[in-house]
Amino acid sequence: MTQTCQVTLQTENSTLTTEIESGALVTEAAAQAGIDINQPCGGQGRCGRCVVQVINGDINRRSSMRLTPEDISAGYVLACQTTIESDVLVKLPKQTKLERKLATDKTVIATPPPPDYDSKISQTTQRFTLTMTPPSMDDQTDDWSRLQTAIRAQANISSLSISLDVLKELGESLRANEWRVSAVVDTGDWYDDGRAARLIKLLPGHVDADAPLWGAAIDIGTTTVSVWLVNLINGEIAAQLSEYNAQIGRGEDVISRIIFSSKGNGQEEMQRLVLSSINELISAACSQADTDPDKIVKVAISGNPTMIHLLLGLPSQSIRLSPFVTAVNKIPPLRAREIGLNINPEGTVDCLPGVASYVGADITAGVLASQMEKSDLISLFIDVGTNGEIVLGNQEWLVTCACSAGPAFEGAGVSDGMRATSGAIEEIWITGSNTDNPFEPSYRVIENIKPKGICGSGLISLIAEMFLNGVLDKAGNINLTLDTPRVRKGKHGAEYVVAWAHETDHGNDIVITNVDIDNLKRAKAAIYAGFLVLAESVGLTLEMVDQFLIGGSFGQYINIEKAIQIGLLPDLDWDKFQYLGNTSIKGAYYALLDRNQRQEIEETAGRMTYIELSSDNTFYEAFMSAMFFPHTDMEKFPSVSQVVSKHAGQP
Amino acid sequence: MTQTCQVTLQTENSTLTTEIESGALVTEAAAQAGIDINQPCGGQGRCGRCVVQVINGDINRRSSMRLTPEDISAGYVLACQTTIESDVLVKLPKQTKLERKLATDKTVIATPPPPDYDSKISQTTQRFTLTMTPPSMDDQTDDWSRLQTAIRAQANISSLSISLDVLKELGESLRANEWRVSAVVDTGDWYDDGRAARLIKLLPGHVDADAPLWGAAIDIGTTTVSVWLVNLINGEIAAQLSEYNAQIGRGEDVISRIIFSSKGNGQEEMQRLVLSSINELISAACSQADTDPDKIVKVAISGNPTMIHLLLGLPSQSIRLSPFVTAVNKIPPLRAREIGLNINPEGTVDCLPGVASYVGADITAGVLASQMEKSDLISLFIDVGTNGEIVLGNQEWLVTCACSAGPAFEGAGVSDGMRATSGAIEEIWITGSNTDNPFEPSYRVIENIKPKGICGSGLISLIAEMFLNGVLDKAGNINLTLDTPRVRKGKHGAEYVVAWAHETDHGNDIVITNVDIDNLKRAKAAIYAGFLVLAESVGLTLEMVDQFLIGGSFGQYINIEKAIQIGLLPDLDWDKFQYLGNTSIKGAYYALLDRNQRQEIEETAGRMTYIELSSDNTFYEAFMSAMFFPHTDMEKFPSVSQVVSKHAGQP
Repeated sequence: MTQTCQVTLQTENSTLTTEIESGALVTEAAAQAGIDINQPCGGQGRCGRCVVQVINGDINRRSSMRLTPEDISAGYVLACQTTIESDVLVKLPKQTKLERKLATDKTVIATPPPPDYDSKISQTTQRFTLTMTPPSMDDQTDDWSRLQTAIRAQANISSLSISLDVLKELGESLRANEWRVSAVVDTGDWYDDGRAARLIKLLPGHVDADAPLWGAAIDIGTTTVSVWLVNLINGEIAAQLSEYNAQIGRGEDVISRIIFSSKGNGQEEMQRLVLSSINELISAACSQADTDPDKIVKVAISGNPTMIHLLLGLPSQSIRLSPFVTAVNKIPPLRAREIGLNINPEGTVDCLPGVASYVGADITAGVLASQMEKSDLISLFIDVGTNGEIVLGNQEWLVTCACSAGPAFEGAGVSDGMRATSGAIEEIWITGSNTDNPFEPSYRVIENIKPKGICGSGLISLIAEMFLNGVLDKAGNINLTLDTPRVRKGKHGAEYVVAWAHETDHGNDIVITNVDIDNLKRAKAAIYAGFLVLAESVGLTLEMVDQFLIGGSFGQYINIEKAIQIGLLPDLDWDKFQYLGNTSIKGAYYALLDRNQRQEIEETAGRMTYIELSSDNTFYEAFMSAMFFPHTDMEKFPSVSQVVSKHAGQP
Repeated sequence: MTQTCQVTLQTENSTLTTEIESGALVTEAAAQAGIDINQPCGGQGRCGRCVVQVINGDINRRSSMRLTPEDISAGYVLACQTTIESDVLVKLPKQTKLERKLATDKTVIATPPPPDYDSKISQTTQRFTLTMTPPSMDDQTDDWSRLQTAIRAQANISSLSISLDVLKELGESLRANEWRVSAVVDTGDWYDDGRAARLIKLLPGHVDADAPLWGAAIDIGTTTVSVWLVNLINGEIAAQLSEYNAQIGRGEDVISRIIFSSKGNGQEEMQRLVLSSINELISAACSQADTDPDKIVKVAISGNPTMIHLLLGLPSQSIRLSPFVTAVNKIPPLRAREIGLNINPEGTVDCLPGVASYVGADITAGVLASQMEKSDLISLFIDVGTNGEIVLGNQEWLVTCACSAGPAFEGAGVSDGMRATSGAIEEIWITGSNTDNPFEPSYRVIENIKPKGICGSGLISLIAEMFLNGVLDKAGNINLTLDTPRVRKGKHGAEYVVAWAHETDHGNDIVITNVDIDNLKRAKAAIYAGFLVLAESVGLTLEMVDQFLIGGSFGQYINIEKAIQIGLLPDLDWDKFQYLGNTSIKGAYYALLDRNQRQEIEETAGRMTYIELSSDNTFYEAFMSAMFFPHTDMEKFPSVSQVVSKHAGQP
């Protein structure tokens, strides 16, 4: 039996009241009242970030994971795991707003148009200037036939389609402009998939051939969404913007997002959230370029399969559940109207193709951007984002896999982890045991302010320094016997203090715990094991790899030396490593501009052999061997062995 | 300056109040209050049917056409031409409801499926039973690729498309049915127009090959909408229903409808109205056949260009204005979802192609149904509906024209005209001048009740009888000198009384006036002139026509003898005439079933030469010559000359 309960919600500044059926979750009541409670784990009760305090009233706890007995007796509950059973009064802590500023300048690398780009040859979206003879009593041809004839006189188009929405505006547009118009046409000339040409829109009069025609390359990352506004006529990029994916409040990784989307109207909410992120970026980019979203007639979208499924409102549960299958890898061409993208409603939406549930368009586009698929050299490409996807190969063969590394290197699942934004410690050095003041850290903070936490590159250098200086043993345990106040036993076991409370932004110590280190060790072990399994699958060793290409916006902050020292990257000559930046959007940009590049992505997706690690024993063994710093087999890391032996005090 | 006016509306049974800005029309205020005032002329102030009485308050008359000075001083106004300028009290007469019963049994002719119909060969919509190997860790193919492979194993389909809406339901449907489903596919195999195959829907499990797969043939007439529910598997018709087109209340002919649709939200309203008519018929047809609208996966729609434009929500103004051009003659294939047709939302909507603004799909489909385009014989085909469209030709050539005959033969524009429904006088005989009781009529009434008016076939026989018996002269003037009370001078000039007040349903005399006769004369003259011009355009005389085919639901009630006597039809041997019934829906039915027939309609539309009569001097001369009964040149009507000379008392 359900009853209606009155829910009173106290926030820092206000008190709100809403009514909801008994049995509803606290998060649902809050959402109904317009309060957005962050649920980084997607409402699974795993992260403990949605804690609220029940002052009075009956509730029912499904789970109290991460809460202490004291928390529980003080009325603290997980909002995503607690149902309302009577009238209740709930106190909500201040919701942590995401830092809204991304280090855009750092993530964007100036990308020139492809050399000799000629939109007349390479571009699938064309603009034609048309002058028609008006209808007369001697020529009563219908408007649409008349327009088709005029377009065909300029282009080799066998079949031209038109949507009902464009047809509705055709007659008035032709007459208002006295039969002198410019037609924007998706020529359908993509590749051999039977796609017909399609009229996107009519523009008044004859548009100058050099006037911009707008497109956009979009990358939907689990963490970050990026938009590049592109002039399709000359290929130049007019604006490059990035912003957090608004879905973050509903889960930090793809698994949490899938789980959230499977509940209630989660699927619609996820679609709405990512669209809001993209649409805001598009508006902002258009403002920068002094144009209008309605003038964008084509977008190419890259992203992992979960991001693409959520964008399109497609169910994504089968991606999460064995045997890990997507609804679709090769997305049919869409019109913006169909998904609510804020560009011209008839604009072409081209979602780039993926390979498997965890190797998506971001990777096929990344491979294109890396050009490894055209090279004689054997390349190992890794996209370091919320997950780690790896591709090994050359122009003749390509193998790929995905490591469920988790978002540890993006700061999630780590006590004082944070993203690489203002206030993040991005590099750390620790004094040696033989110094006057041993085991003391020094660090660099993004924007040079008081630190708030540690980002991925900071975590890598921290672990490397702790390991090399003996704060951490090979197995990843903090040495509690050291004579320094930096090492101590905390709530969650052994921990190392990176910054004392008085030095920090929030007035609490910034630490790294054994639990954090374990999470990071698992992540790096998964990635390294992925390298090994891919190489072994084609009978190679990692030493035989000619170049090691690192994509993903996080990739460019990695200190190669440190990453090798913790065993995240293999111990190769440093000059084999190359940073490529956000390869996903770069690939989307090329695909947006050039039909041949677009076709190459399709072909690359077709010839990539996917290796499913979760059912691979070799992977499990490689993973276990990599659960050390840098590795159980030190012969695999000769340069690290050398450094270690130089450091004093090592076991 | 506008102000808000309170409008009080008194109907027979109730008083309603609404508020509207000053300057609004009385019809708008009524619509806002939920009262539907009939506007048969489309709100042009021409028909005088929307008269209401303003009891008090200020109004502004744009026009008072058809109102007498007495009417005006009594406060009567045309609701479609009168604006509200203060608080007003308006009295509304009882709205004449359309008789909701059509003589369905009479209009429907049993139509067998094409001989040897084999859906596997002829049908463009196919149902495949599929059994797929479920995904596994060894085969992680995405759902949509897996399904495509299964379909391609059974059908020669190069490119298969899927809408986002179907894609959203794919995964769950496949899993819930354990990878055993039946797929309904539009094979795209229509004709060479680059159309891709498209998945329409998945059905659970393996559907029996003999189980019905539903389609519908639809004819949208200006007056009547017809739906045939068809089993696409065996071609049989499961239900045939007709109903008035709900747009009638917004205009009796296409011109009035176009004008109405051009005002305010008229276009949306017209679309809504015709959809309501079609959707009701579909629901009723499905009930009869014990099935569900959602199971209909394909429709073929016929109708004149204005009806098709209004159905699709396309602007139709250019159809009405010189040089009379449609937005589109060959409509792109649509999904039901796009226009709101109540069948499966993904079902294919195939609007058959037209030729010109006044020669539409109803005529191309009619030609197909008549088979004249495959015959050696020279045929003259006429579709008698609200307009009169004519096609002349054989398997080698086809010429066509449209006569703006107007709806006089459907009873509109005639004082006591009405449609062929209950209470309509459908045939009339008049006694000769040499009889005891000369010039006395006798008549037959549909359903044998007291007469309410005269329908088209009644008007034809009435004029023929009046002419042959000397009540009417050759020029169409009523002879007021006759010694009979049936002939008299009325409000609108000379008139002939067909039924006295005490004999009628409404207690008023049923008459025909000189004005009515003039309207009918113009209509018949336009049609006859059309015949002549078409024949002359190819160097033929009407005597050289081998067969004369009459389509349109009205066609089958015409008494050939009488129609020749008034000069509506040419004076040919009666056995050259043939009734074909509703050829428009019959053609749609064949096109729905058979890809070859569908292609033939397309080709027929392509090879019909359209002759625009409004710019044709020959037509004007032929029209003037035909403005007599039966014609100025009696040699063209030898059989009528004979009959006339037999009748006594003729001048």
